[in-house]
Amino acid sequence: MGSVLSVAARGDAADEVVATETSAAEVDAIVGRAAAASAVLAAASRVDRARLLRSLADALEADSEAIVAAADRETALGTTRLTGELARSSFQLRLFAEVIEDGHYLSATIDHADANAQPVARPDLRRMLVPIGPVAVFSASNFPLAFSVPGGDTASAIAAGNAVVVKVHSGHPATSLLCAAALQQGAADAGFPADTVALVFGTEAGRTLVQHPAVRAASFTGSVAGGRALFDLASGRPEPIPFFGELGSINALVITPDALSERATEIATGLAGSFTLGLGQFCTKPGLVLVPAGTDFAEQLALAAPTTGGSMLNERIRSGWLASVDALGGSDDVTTLLRTAAVSLYSMPASSVIATGGASVAFEECFGPSTLLVEYESADELEAVLRLVPGSLTGSVHAGRGEGSPGSTAALALALLTERCGRVLWNQFPTGVSVTWAMQHGGPYPATTNAASTSVGAAAILRFLRAVAYQNLPAALLPLELRDDNPTAVPQRIDGKL
Amino acid sequence: MGSVLSVAARGDAADEVVATETSAAEVDAIVGRAAAASAVLAAASRVDRARLLRSLADALEADSEAIVAAADRETALGTTRLTGELARSSFQLRLFAEVIEDGHYLSATIDHADANAQPVARPDLRRMLVPIGPVAVFSASNFPLAFSVPGGDTASAIAAGNAVVVKVHSGHPATSLLCAAALQQGAADAGFPADTVALVFGTEAGRTLVQHPAVRAASFTGSVAGGRALFDLASGRPEPIPFFGELGSINALVITPDALSERATEIATGLAGSFTLGLGQFCTKPGLVLVPAGTDFAEQLALAAPTTGGSMLNERIRSGWLASVDALGGSDDVTTLLRTAAVSLYSMPASSVIATGGASVAFEECFGPSTLLVEYESADELEAVLRLVPGSLTGSVHAGRGEGSPGSTAALALALLTERCGRVLWNQFPTGVSVTWAMQHGGPYPATTNAASTSVGAAAILRFLRAVAYQNLPAALLPLELRDDNPTAVPQRIDGKL
Repeated sequence: MGSVLSVAARGDAADEVVATETSAAEVDAIVGRAAAASAVLAAASRVDRARLLRSLADALEADSEAIVAAADRETALGTTRLTGELARSSFQLRLFAEVIEDGHYLSATIDHADANAQPVARPDLRRMLVPIGPVAVFSASNFPLAFSVPGGDTASAIAAGNAVVVKVHSGHPATSLLCAAALQQGAADAGFPADTVALVFGTEAGRTLVQHPAVRAASFTGSVAGGRALFDLASGRPEPIPFFGELGSINALVITPDALSERATEIATGLAGSFTLGLGQFCTKPGLVLVPAGTDFAEQLALAAPTTGGSMLNERIRSGWLASVDALGGSDDVTTLLRTAAVSLYSMPASSVIATGGASVAFEECFGPSTLLVEYESADELEAVLRLVPGSLTGSVHAGRGEGSPGSTAALALALLTERCGRVLWNQFPTGVSVTWAMQHGGPYPATTNAASTSVGAAAILRFLRAVAYQNLPAALLPLELRDDNPTAVPQRIDGKL
Repeated sequence: MGSVLSVAARGDAADEVVATETSAAEVDAIVGRAAAASAVLAAASRVDRARLLRSLADALEADSEAIVAAADRETALGTTRLTGELARSSFQLRLFAEVIEDGHYLSATIDHADANAQPVARPDLRRMLVPIGPVAVFSASNFPLAFSVPGGDTASAIAAGNAVVVKVHSGHPATSLLCAAALQQGAADAGFPADTVALVFGTEAGRTLVQHPAVRAASFTGSVAGGRALFDLASGRPEPIPFFGELGSINALVITPDALSERATEIATGLAGSFTLGLGQFCTKPGLVLVPAGTDFAEQLALAAPTTGGSMLNERIRSGWLASVDALGGSDDVTTLLRTAAVSLYSMPASSVIATGGASVAFEECFGPSTLLVEYESADELEAVLRLVPGSLTGSVHAGRGEGSPGSTAALALALLTERCGRVLWNQFPTGVSVTWAMQHGGPYPATTNAASTSVGAAAILRFLRAVAYQNLPAALLPLELRDDNPTAVPQRIDGKL
């Protein structure tokens, strides 16, 4: 308690942009233009939308130097990380071009009329997914590019055929303006409306946005409090809209006795790197580590932890982290193992967690470079804690060589984590979220407000579509993807067969 | 006003079962058993779950005589309709057996580790959909079988790998008890827990059910008021759950001038059959018919309407229908064209609807054998009304022979309806919902609370799944569907290719 941290905040430096809050009337006008742009996007062919996405990626890369410099001024994340984040963002835009060219995401399905169908005759029916309409995107503090204006939500919403209105995060307005300008140029270059991407500024503008009748879906990456407030607004509308919020995640990580006896040092090194990566400002940071009691793992982890700090994203995040680690460190049965300028580390017996149940301080997310070791005396204690773990983005198991089959302690832990998490890992660390076809970045509440969806990877496009069936339509009025001659060569399930 | 209708209610007849309301403690115990049964279902192979679904269908058919008799006593729907509904229900169970054997619904996706992947090296990642957990099903008044205990929600939830707890509709408790007994026998016959299907009775039990922490999703078919109240409870939980509600639908139907001049009598006959089918007690009943003004279509429709009535589902529905048609008939600018024992028919100028906007009485659903003709003077008036139509399950266009290409009045109407509806029809009527791969039974609010989902057809299974990614797992701990040797021969997308 009371030790001075050198972890500083740079987001509030002198050169920041102070953006004017967007008024309700301006939000209304912006959403009106987004609706018009959505109609253009929805009417465009998939080939043209794929071209649009690649043009957006090109435009982002063309301005990369200025964007990275602005983002570094506003977030202190450093040019190496930010250059990587820009590459990830443009990669993401191009991946969604491939997703819509592939076309499977539409689930195009044709059932021809059949007078002899069972249990009754059926008409000609053709179903596919269509764009949902303008999407509100609430950007994140910790990813000024990949989860903000040019991020995965924007990319997947546009790929699906919708314009986006991004509520800018207050931590990086200049970066957001530069990114929006680049994307608008990219849209224009591809012959699409500049209104394909628009921005609004300010908390109240965000609330207005998520309640606007023409907004048809929203996505969010941020805190439980902020995300839940917006989810409640979206669900409470006269016409509720889907709200895909990524809120908070504890990301439990289990180390089995076998794993520890085989490679404690290697695990300590990997874990120290993971929970302090980016100063712990990742939603997938392992925040609760289950380790066998009575070992020296805590000392090994403390030794492996970095000794130099850095600047956190902004003052609010820094003070929030300090408050949460103070609360953790001051809790009953919690031992402070390490508290330096760069990192803090705590431990707690599993029995204390079990005694308090789901309300234990062990399950409070601390967004920053800290983690909590929960020391278990037995497999029963391990299981009891895992049954209390709240919904999370990730859950990891570090297992011994002999534990790779059902029945092992590690396999049991994995099964319990799978019930609670969107991504489970074996002998790896959860920070670092690959942008691939198979990624799932989501999970049961409070990890997200919708455990069926992902905000990263190819399946993210499914959030921004709705389904329509066309009955007995003349071919000329059908979407191209549902015609018998299949002019866009999309995968079609025909009379039950794909 | 004041004319006596012979349409009676039979649900309140002397032989009804008065079921005891399920207490909160009983709901808790039932959900606990459903959670245990869900674990069994989730662990079962798709082959075994397909066998379970066919066993449920067999058991339902084995008891069909008693079930149909009970349903007829409780709902007055008649044995012909109810025998068909039972056949539809068992067909539905078997269709979902095919859906899970097909396996595409899982979206099994494998990305192998790739040290050279762009923009950064990636780990081994495998994603698929997994069962969500116990599902609460709120059954409908108007389909005592196909949208109740043995209906599509139950079939799709079990197919996905979840146990269901059905909140019985007060209109058919005896039918529900018989159906549950049959399904429990069918489950036992297939070696699955009887708790695969359970019942609760009473409005308060339903509220308790949708708020129970172990219930992971809910589905509902019924009124806007009832559905919205439950949606609000589901969304307001500490951990919100997805709520798939089918609430209310106006089902606009457009008749173009060309269609009318070509085949007015044929359309009148078809429409009269559609809006009075089952005494208008279908969620897809065409409740608002846009017709050219200054024709004799209203007279033709009145002539085509049936002259004999029948018994409505129950007294509450009958009195609700009378109240809604009284309100409609007494509204400004509404003309009563026909009001008999069997049917009522109204008309209103499009200009009046446009003047009142979205709040017009024209958009209030009247659940029963009635419809409203809205007479338009011009294509502009037609378009203006269509832009006000609320989200609906269906929208239909009756077009002339020359209107089957873009640019026609009919094509414009179809496009406007497609923005608002889950199913659009051309020269057909919306009552009758086929159970097929391509069916979409859903639509923008208030038709449903989730326009991406369907409650009928193969895609209904997607409501009761969530997504999990498995990173770097030993093969022996992966679900069978994600293994490289693909022992269950499921469709897999591997490294981006399906």
